[in-house]
Amino acid sequence: MERKALVVLSGGQDSTTCLFWSIKKYKAENVYAVGFDYGQRHRKELLCAEKICKNAGVGFEVIKTPIINELSANALTREDIQVDKQKPEDSTPNTLVEGRNLLFLSYAAIFAKTHNITDLVTGVCETDFSGYPDCRDIFIKSLNVTLNLAMDYNFVIHTPLMWLDKADTWALADSLGVLDIIKNETLTCYNGIIGDGCGECPSCFLRRRGYEEFLKRKGN
Amino acid sequence: MERKALVVLSGGQDSTTCLFWSIKKYKAENVYAVGFDYGQRHRKELLCAEKICKNAGVGFEVIKTPIINELSANALTREDIQVDKQKPEDSTPNTLVEGRNLLFLSYAAIFAKTHNITDLVTGVCETDFSGYPDCRDIFIKSLNVTLNLAMDYNFVIHTPLMWLDKADTWALADSLGVLDIIKNETLTCYNGIIGDGCGECPSCFLRRRGYEEFLKRKGN
Repeated sequence: MERKALVVLSGGQDSTTCLFWSIKKYKAENVYAVGFDYGQRHRKELLCAEKICKNAGVGFEVIKTPIINELSANALTREDIQVDKQKPEDSTPNTLVEGRNLLFLSYAAIFAKTHNITDLVTGVCETDFSGYPDCRDIFIKSLNVTLNLAMDYNFVIHTPLMWLDKADTWALADSLGVLDIIKNETLTCYNGIIGDGCGECPSCFLRRRGYEEFLKRKGN
Repeated sequence: MERKALVVLSGGQDSTTCLFWSIKKYKAENVYAVGFDYGQRHRKELLCAEKICKNAGVGFEVIKTPIINELSANALTREDIQVDKQKPEDSTPNTLVEGRNLLFLSYAAIFAKTHNITDLVTGVCETDFSGYPDCRDIFIKSLNVTLNLAMDYNFVIHTPLMWLDKADTWALADSLGVLDIIKNETLTCYNGIIGDGCGECPSCFLRRRGYEEFLKRKGN
């Protein structure tokens, strides 16, 4: 039996690259994607995700989870909190949504088991860590065991970007033949501008710096 | 600094006994409780929980989480599915809500950290296991590690009932001086009848058998 994979898709650079990584590995007909509507500033990213999946021939479903916004306050979901321009030195950035990957991957796992899918794919990455504890490899490995025990099921969590830097992620998209899709159709910018973004928020800064480094390494 | 505890409270026998266990251990002013409204058949149990907390001087909050019902189908939340009268021999009972304790404890943990609470108390019990994988001690221990990694915080999950049978749980309520509250004010029955219940569903059967065993051991 062919394995099926469920991609946790935000419509950003990282998870969209993981989508195409999954399509190459499992074939489009065995790949599904879920996005989460948790009251984030930029629901537009879910429209990006939907469009990309449609064009790629992959089923996509949005799961509404307002509870994430209710349980903790942070700048990504609360309009009255400003996104920090620079990461605070001694603490996690105020875009931290406490427990977000824990909940996203738990929901994805429940959805996956219900659809006889064993493999979960997420774009979390320890290299561009930024102090989010639930992006660490040790957390993902612990969660994999916890999910398997919780549901008595053999989930396998894949993290193709875990040890890549942003330049490597651009190179991966390039090798998968989807550089243009990632560059033009994904939304990473905290200010909601598709593609190259506002150029000023921390997310645009990391994205652009990675892209320039990717071009340099490629020898352009 | 005194430790604070958050009890996951359903208004049933087990979690209510845990509430009073927590009050004895931490004092009422350091104990909080959360209940979950996930579209269960008997939301009346949340009213039981609320009343019990009020009388005990403990803060109580209900967290709405309809997503649990949306993600998987089962007899506790879907009115078109009948509760099995007897546990199926080869499978988990159809009252299984896939991943329920995983999500409840994850929500509780996020809520707890936001309120500077480290200790989580849950009534899960491996003795009356019934095939729910997320009632097992090994799951709880794995989840404890996962939560601590997810949020970089030192949660301690307490499971006072893990190795007790139902008769032991009645004895614990008795030793805490709350036997009457547990007997008369909690709701365990799948058919929504407070106290001794309908007497016919699997939950009432276990509750009554445990009570009779407790009385026998006590020598009444």
